[in-house]
Amino acid sequence: MQLRYAIIGTGALGGYYGGKLAFAGKDVHFLFHSDYDHVVEHGLRVDSVDGNMYLPTVNVYRKTTDMPTCDVVLVCLKTTSNHELDTILPPLLTQGTCVILIQNGLSMEDELAFKFPSIHIGGGLGFICSSKVGPGHIIHTDYGKLTLAPYTSAAAGLVSDIAEDMSQAGIETVYTDDLVLARWRKLVWNIPFNGLCVALNTSTYNLMEKPCSYELLKDLMLEVIAAAGACGKPIEKAFAQEMLDSTKVMRPYAPSMKLDYDNQRPLEIKAIYSNPLKAAYLAGCNMPKVRMLEQQLLFIMETYRNQGK
Amino acid sequence: MQLRYAIIGTGALGGYYGGKLAFAGKDVHFLFHSDYDHVVEHGLRVDSVDGNMYLPTVNVYRKTTDMPTCDVVLVCLKTTSNHELDTILPPLLTQGTCVILIQNGLSMEDELAFKFPSIHIGGGLGFICSSKVGPGHIIHTDYGKLTLAPYTSAAAGLVSDIAEDMSQAGIETVYTDDLVLARWRKLVWNIPFNGLCVALNTSTYNLMEKPCSYELLKDLMLEVIAAAGACGKPIEKAFAQEMLDSTKVMRPYAPSMKLDYDNQRPLEIKAIYSNPLKAAYLAGCNMPKVRMLEQQLLFIMETYRNQGK
Repeated sequence: MQLRYAIIGTGALGGYYGGKLAFAGKDVHFLFHSDYDHVVEHGLRVDSVDGNMYLPTVNVYRKTTDMPTCDVVLVCLKTTSNHELDTILPPLLTQGTCVILIQNGLSMEDELAFKFPSIHIGGGLGFICSSKVGPGHIIHTDYGKLTLAPYTSAAAGLVSDIAEDMSQAGIETVYTDDLVLARWRKLVWNIPFNGLCVALNTSTYNLMEKPCSYELLKDLMLEVIAAAGACGKPIEKAFAQEMLDSTKVMRPYAPSMKLDYDNQRPLEIKAIYSNPLKAAYLAGCNMPKVRMLEQQLLFIMETYRNQGK
Repeated sequence: MQLRYAIIGTGALGGYYGGKLAFAGKDVHFLFHSDYDHVVEHGLRVDSVDGNMYLPTVNVYRKTTDMPTCDVVLVCLKTTSNHELDTILPPLLTQGTCVILIQNGLSMEDELAFKFPSIHIGGGLGFICSSKVGPGHIIHTDYGKLTLAPYTSAAAGLVSDIAEDMSQAGIETVYTDDLVLARWRKLVWNIPFNGLCVALNTSTYNLMEKPCSYELLKDLMLEVIAAAGACGKPIEKAFAQEMLDSTKVMRPYAPSMKLDYDNQRPLEIKAIYSNPLKAAYLAGCNMPKVRMLEQQLLFIMETYRNQGK
C-alpha cells in the first residue's frame, strides 16, 4: 500500500524533498500559505543540479483541516515555528501516523512526543544546499542527502519504508537507528558555523581562512564532541578535523542561520544551542564557548528585534 | 629637588595627566607628533569637568633626541605602539630614570624590562573618561583616578614621590605596591567590556541591559578572577558584582577598544587578552570564554585590515 505524505513547510527543504516524492509519483499533499494561489495556478518548480522538475498540478492546501489524514507528515518548518504544530498537526493524524521533523538541532522530538504522546515520531537531517527563490520555486544547488531515523522505537519499520520511498524518488537517503547520535553529529558542524557566521557577520570561507577563527571553529567542535560523549553518544575526536577538511572543499555557502540573520528572521538558537547546552549540562558537561556563542546570538537577535527590524 | 617629567603620547591620558602636572608648575616636557606646530603656536588646552586648564606655552618637542634626559617618563601610548619605545626612550634615560607605563593590559613591563634591564620601571592605571578632540585639545568628562605602582622594587621610592607630585597637581592618585594585582583588577572590567563592545558592536549600556549579555559579562569577569587567583593575585569573587553594579551607575561611555574599533585603529588585543591568557595558561588556568573573545577580536581586526580600512 502506498504511503500518503503531507509536507508541512514547502520551502527550501520541503519543496525539494516533497517535490522529488511527488515527481516520482508518490501520494504527496502540500500545505502552502502565501504561495497557495501561485502554486494552484502555476504548479511547483524545482530547479535542481540533478535535473529540473516541474509539477504542473500538485495537491495543495491552505490549511491542514482541508487535507486528508496522512501516514507520514514531513515537517520542514524552521524549529522557531514548532509551536504552530499544536494546531497544524491534529487534522493530519490518524492511527499510526508518523511525524518526521526534518530540522537541525536537538530535543525537538522530545517536545513533540510530550504534546502528542500517541503518534509515531521520527527525525530527519537534510544535508542540502537549496533555497526558495520565489513562490513555488525552489533552487537546489548542491548535495541533497537525507538522514532518517525513528525517534519512537515503534516507528522504526515505517521510517524504514519512508527511506525506501525517498530512495526510489532519487533522494540519497540514509536510514539510521540512532537519531540522537545523528543530531549530535550534525551539530558538530552546525554549532560553530551557523553561530560564528552570524556573530562575526561573515562566511564559512572567511572563518576557514583565518587561523584565529579556524582554531575557534575547532574548539567549538571539540566541545560539542565532548558533550555528545557525556550524553552517551560518543563521536570520535577526529570527526572535527574531518568536518573542517570537508568544509574546505565545499563550495562556499551561507549556513541557514546566516540567511535567517540577513533576513532578520528569528534564529534557531533554542534548537541548535540551548537544547544541546541543556542536555550537556544535565549530563555533567559544560560547553563554555558554545554557551558564549548562545549568549552572543541571543544578544544579536534581541538587538535587531528591539530595532523593530 | 624637582622631578623632571617627559610625557610620551599626549593624547587623552597624557594630555590630561601631563597637563595637570604642568599646570601645577611641575617641570614637564611633552613629545608631540602631528600636533607639534599647533601646540607651539596655541598651547595645550584641557577642558575638564574639574575646571578648564589652558597652558599657553609648554615644553614641546618633535622627537626625544631634542629633549633633556628626565627623571620620569610617563608613557601614555597605546600598547600597540610599545615597539616604538625602543627608539623613543633611549635619549630620555639617565641614571635612575623611571619609566611608567600608564596603560591597560598585562605584562608590558616585562617586555620593557627585558629590553631596558637597567632602568626603573613602574606601571599606572588611569580610570578616566577623556578624549583628544583636536590638536593639543583634550576633553575630560568624568573620573580621573590614577593608580601608580613600582614594577622594579628599587623604583618604589621614586614612584611614591611621583604619586605625591600627582596628588599635589590635583590628580586623585593611589599608590599601591602590587602592580600585577592592580593590573588584574582592572582587567576584570576591561576584558569583558572592551571586547564585547567590539565583538557585538554595541555599548556598555546595551550589554548591561540584556540578561544574556549581562550574564556573559559576569562569566568573563569570573574567569579573569579565577585566572588572577591562579597567578597568585587573589581577587574576591564579589568584585565581579561590584564592577557590574558600579557600571550600572556610570554614565554610558565607549571603552577605549570600541573607540579604536570605530576608528579602525589597531586593537590592544595582545596586552588586554593574549598576555593575560598566556599568564593564566602558564599558571595552569584556562579562560575559555576570554580566549573565544580574543579569537573573535583577532578575526574582526584582520577582517577590517584586509578590507584596507
